[in-house]
Amino acid sequence: MSDPSTLSATEAARRIRAGSLSATALTEALLARIAAREPAVRAFVHLDPALALRAAAAADASAKAGRAGPLQGLAFGVKDVLDTADQPSQYGSPIWAGHRPRSDAACVALARRAGAIILGKTVTTEFATRHPGATANPHNPKHTPGGSSSGSAAGAGAGFFHAGFGTQTAGSIIRPAAFCGAVGFKPSYGTLHRAGMKVMSESLDTIGVITGSVADAALAMAGLTGGDYGDPDAKPGRAPRLGLCWGPTADQAKPETRAMLERVVAAAARAGATVVPFEMPAAVVAGLAAHGAVMNGESADALAWEFDHAAAQLSPGLRERMEWGRDQPRAVKDAGRLAFAAARTAFADVVAGFDAILTPSAPGEAPEGLGATGDPAFNSLWTLLHVPCVTVPVGTGPLGLPLGAQIVAGIGQDKAALAWAEWVRQAA
Amino acid sequence: MSDPSTLSATEAARRIRAGSLSATALTEALLARIAAREPAVRAFVHLDPALALRAAAAADASAKAGRAGPLQGLAFGVKDVLDTADQPSQYGSPIWAGHRPRSDAACVALARRAGAIILGKTVTTEFATRHPGATANPHNPKHTPGGSSSGSAAGAGAGFFHAGFGTQTAGSIIRPAAFCGAVGFKPSYGTLHRAGMKVMSESLDTIGVITGSVADAALAMAGLTGGDYGDPDAKPGRAPRLGLCWGPTADQAKPETRAMLERVVAAAARAGATVVPFEMPAAVVAGLAAHGAVMNGESADALAWEFDHAAAQLSPGLRERMEWGRDQPRAVKDAGRLAFAAARTAFADVVAGFDAILTPSAPGEAPEGLGATGDPAFNSLWTLLHVPCVTVPVGTGPLGLPLGAQIVAGIGQDKAALAWAEWVRQAA
Repeated sequence: MSDPSTLSATEAARRIRAGSLSATALTEALLARIAAREPAVRAFVHLDPALALRAAAAADASAKAGRAGPLQGLAFGVKDVLDTADQPSQYGSPIWAGHRPRSDAACVALARRAGAIILGKTVTTEFATRHPGATANPHNPKHTPGGSSSGSAAGAGAGFFHAGFGTQTAGSIIRPAAFCGAVGFKPSYGTLHRAGMKVMSESLDTIGVITGSVADAALAMAGLTGGDYGDPDAKPGRAPRLGLCWGPTADQAKPETRAMLERVVAAAARAGATVVPFEMPAAVVAGLAAHGAVMNGESADALAWEFDHAAAQLSPGLRERMEWGRDQPRAVKDAGRLAFAAARTAFADVVAGFDAILTPSAPGEAPEGLGATGDPAFNSLWTLLHVPCVTVPVGTGPLGLPLGAQIVAGIGQDKAALAWAEWVRQAA
Repeated sequence: MSDPSTLSATEAARRIRAGSLSATALTEALLARIAAREPAVRAFVHLDPALALRAAAAADASAKAGRAGPLQGLAFGVKDVLDTADQPSQYGSPIWAGHRPRSDAACVALARRAGAIILGKTVTTEFATRHPGATANPHNPKHTPGGSSSGSAAGAGAGFFHAGFGTQTAGSIIRPAAFCGAVGFKPSYGTLHRAGMKVMSESLDTIGVITGSVADAALAMAGLTGGDYGDPDAKPGRAPRLGLCWGPTADQAKPETRAMLERVVAAAARAGATVVPFEMPAAVVAGLAAHGAVMNGESADALAWEFDHAAAQLSPGLRERMEWGRDQPRAVKDAGRLAFAAARTAFADVVAGFDAILTPSAPGEAPEGLGATGDPAFNSLWTLLHVPCVTVPVGTGPLGLPLGAQIVAGIGQDKAALAWAEWVRQAA
């Protein structure tokens, strides 16, 4: 039998169901792959192989007893802003060094309930903001993996696990997934409950998954929620009507991104898609203008205890942004949330004219250096709109690093977003 | 000098600012009042007088050093679904017995930053749902104080502290405040960050305050957020245009509530108000129909860890509702959140025609018995609409127990809601 660490989640799940692969064998194979590549990638902030193997053995025992969940034996990496009862949860900050929560975050508990193995905790930037951890891009260790879900994206890109939990406040799932050549899926806001997450911006923070394929993202989401995420590998019976959106931040797209999106548009059109460029209505653009005040204002409240008891252990950049957010007038922050709601209402009319929207995932390839995680310019808008977003890998840029195209649908249209994302990926 | 425990928050704050009252003297007076009445009321699940007095001494030292916040020396009770670093946080459940979080909830940290004394943790029902704690109604110990913010409402009604933090998913601030003869204020959704709260329903849970007067609620909110909550004691220069809403649950109003609201309407009209009865549009009623599936579905996710590791320690009623919520089809829960959003859009048009809306706070007086906390029939709608709600005491029912009238305004119109609530209270 071939190395099981190379199997997609969908294929591994099939073999486990069929009894031809055990969770233990799969976990052992993944741990071997990690042992070989983790020194260069540094996706994990906590990895205890013995603990993972005990969980795999327990999963195998459950399966033998007839209790197998939809994610039986599959491996998850958990971004370290999500609590785990059996592993430290340190939120990317020295303030929380050694913290051991009593309970699992809701999404972690749901993953375990579905039979998944929590392989380890993945690196997050400081409180899922900007100050980076040690993770490198698996495609070139001199380049950032992106952030804030750095370890989940790098680990998914390196094939360390079948799904990495990520969270997105600005661009923290889609951008790193694109940088690492993975599939990133930010579901509709509120799909995965944030209980046990170190929430920063209540209006924005969204939990999602980073995987090796669109089908694997659908499998993970269906297993976690019981919802219908479809079968992205099934060919739709028609080609889509796609809206092409460069968006209010169009001028931040680098040449490789312009070339990539034009290439994807041409390929989609050849495959039968109708592609219609459009501009965002003013109410949507106004929502984006409020993103910074709401995000930093809410995050400053979220970190009130840290700020008052351990400010010296916050990075200087975060401290500065939290002071800025704290000092924005309350009326501006309240108006910002209303602007978000108005943007969502206006966008619902726009997106109703399309099957899905095509837009960049990031300005370009992953930038060089590990001191910064890149720019969420092409992400914040979709986060505040609360819409499902998928990034799919569509080739490489001038340095040979992955590029992603982003597919967006209306709130609640998660299944369609995944289906058309896979359609676009195959067409491109 | 008179007993400082009888002072309103507003007056106590004035005297502390003027230097004629110390936080220590105020805290001592409140602790004496608590010592006398707490055996009958049972508002606290944790109260450490020595800890409170140390905090008061520290507040006095800060004030002497010129560092006095807007809530300097005022006493807060904290519902025990909100984390406190220096006191146990047990969420009304034996599963969390003895739990000591590392940090304060955001709202607790903001209260301390503003100079407030965290007097103790107040009784919550089990995870802020239905299974009650030991608290009694301060107006008649054979009657429920309501819930889930039982201890914060009873403590505010008994004058144990200047403000009690409450949380509302269905009717958990407004109903107990009305039952206990207190003022309850549920601000616009998202105003007080839920970091460090044991969140159940992400779409609904809202943190607010229960106080002795509307002015004290405004003082507390302004001190916590830096926002403008106005001066509810200042006479508006005109009478309001009020919408009268019996709402989709009108048939659940008891005779005392019908009589009360008719009396309030007549008094408001005599004082110059225009009172216009209206019916809710269908989209709003449809939102209410989705409340149960979203609330219990999200709560079941929130308690996934407890359910899988300690189900035997959940009350049978909660376990049953969590199973029901878990088993609702995911599509129904997702559609429910969309129905909430549509209800909010529809309601914005309705409320734009009024200065505020007048509606019952609860079906009637606090029911007899401590085994149940009453019915949120007149609250769930306003919670899902995310609008600011105020209950003000407006007399008593046939058993001599307090009745509340509820004043509601549009999202973000918190200052107006407080101002017109006080106007209605004075008119009634």
